[in-house]
Amino acid sequence: MSFDKVKRNRTIPKPSILRLCKVYSLLNEYKNNTLTTISSKDIGQRLGVASHNIRKDISFLFGESGTIGSGYDIEKLKNQIEQRFGFNHKRNACIIGLDSLGTALLNQRLIINDNFKILAGFDSNINRLETLKTDIALYPTHEITDVVRNHSIEFAVITDAGKEPSRIIDRLINGGIRGIVNFSSTNITSDRKDIFVSNFDLIGEFRYLVALISLNSVINADGHD
Amino acid sequence: MSFDKVKRNRTIPKPSILRLCKVYSLLNEYKNNTLTTISSKDIGQRLGVASHNIRKDISFLFGESGTIGSGYDIEKLKNQIEQRFGFNHKRNACIIGLDSLGTALLNQRLIINDNFKILAGFDSNINRLETLKTDIALYPTHEITDVVRNHSIEFAVITDAGKEPSRIIDRLINGGIRGIVNFSSTNITSDRKDIFVSNFDLIGEFRYLVALISLNSVINADGHD
Repeated sequence: MSFDKVKRNRTIPKPSILRLCKVYSLLNEYKNNTLTTISSKDIGQRLGVASHNIRKDISFLFGESGTIGSGYDIEKLKNQIEQRFGFNHKRNACIIGLDSLGTALLNQRLIINDNFKILAGFDSNINRLETLKTDIALYPTHEITDVVRNHSIEFAVITDAGKEPSRIIDRLINGGIRGIVNFSSTNITSDRKDIFVSNFDLIGEFRYLVALISLNSVINADGHD
Repeated sequence: MSFDKVKRNRTIPKPSILRLCKVYSLLNEYKNNTLTTISSKDIGQRLGVASHNIRKDISFLFGESGTIGSGYDIEKLKNQIEQRFGFNHKRNACIIGLDSLGTALLNQRLIINDNFKILAGFDSNINRLETLKTDIALYPTHEITDVVRNHSIEFAVITDAGKEPSRIIDRLINGGIRGIVNFSSTNITSDRKDIFVSNFDLIGEFRYLVALISLNSVINADGHD
C-alpha cells in the first residue's frame, strides 16, 4: 500500500467517517432505483447536513474529482465507501445479554445482517441459556475470553452487562475484541486506541422523550408559555 | 399547581433531564437488591458522569435536601423521577415501517414495554400488512393521521420512513403526535416546540464502528503508528 493511501486514511476526520457511513446507508436505498447520480445537495437534505460538508467528506475518498456533472455516480460512491471502510466482508460478532433485545438480535439478525455474522450468545443466567431456542451457540459469560479468541470474534453487542460490566469488558478485551456496541444503561469507555466503543442507551433515550413531553404538558396545562 | 412547581419544571436543563432518565434506568436495576441507598459517586461511576453533576441534577428534583447520610434513598428517588417525568403511566404508541426491526418492536415489545402500549403498525407495503402475523392492528401509511388521532397515539417509532419521510412526518403531526423516535437513516427534525424527535441511525452507527476498525487495521498493517 502506498504512503499516499495510508495518509489519506489517516486524515479522514471522525465526523466525516460518521457522515460517510450515513451517506452509504442512503445510497443503499437507491439500489433498485433508475437514478444513477445524486447531488451533494440531495444527500445533505436527506441527512440534515450542509451540502458543502458532504462535498468535503466525499473529497476525502476521491479527491476533488468525484463530481460528474450534476452529482456523484451512486454505484461508484457506494463501492468506494464499501472498500475504504471495510463493508465488503462480514465480521464475526457476538451478543452479550440474552434478554428480549438480545434474543431479537440473535434470532432476527435485525440491523446487523449485512455486516455481521453472529457466532455466539452469552448470558450469566444458566437457566436462560438452557431454555432459549436458537441455532446459535450459547455460553455462560465466564467463557467470553476463550470463545471470542477461538472464533475470531471482532464485534460484541452488549444488551445487558450485569452488575459488573468492567469484568465483561475485560474478558472481551482479553479475547481480542475490536468493537463494542453497548445498549445497556451502563456507560462503557475504552482506554485502548484500537478498541472502539459506541454507547446507545435506548431505554434512557425513550424515557428522555417521555420526560420532555410530560414536562411540556405540565407547563402548558398551567397556562404559561 | 403552584407557581413554584411550574418554575422548577421549567428550570431543569435538558442535559439534566437526560441524565436523570439514565439515573432512573440505573435505579431500576436495584429493584430486587437489599441496598436501600445509593451515593452520587456510585451513580456517577456507573453512568460515566462526575458525581457533582449527579448531585446538581438530583437537586432539581428535591432541592438540596435529598441526601440521607451517605446517599439517596433509592425508592424515593425513583418515585420522584417517575412522577415528575410522567413514567407512571403508559403512553399509546405506533410503529412505522414493519421490516425486521419494526416487526421485532411490534411482537416482542423489546425496549418499550414499560412506558408504551403499541396500538398500531404502519407500512406502505400492502403485501406485508396482509402476511404479517401479529395481534396488533396494521394499517397502510396513508391512514396514519386518522389512526393516530382516533386512538390518541402520542408516540411513533419510525424504523423506515420510505422515500418521502416528510409526508410521514406531516401525517403524524396532523394526527397529533407528541414524540418521534426515528431509527431510519433519514434525519428528522421538528419545527414545533411541542413535538420532540430523537434520531438514532443504528445501522449508520454500527457501520461507523466497522469503518473505524477497518481504517485502524490499514494503518497498523502498514507498520505506521
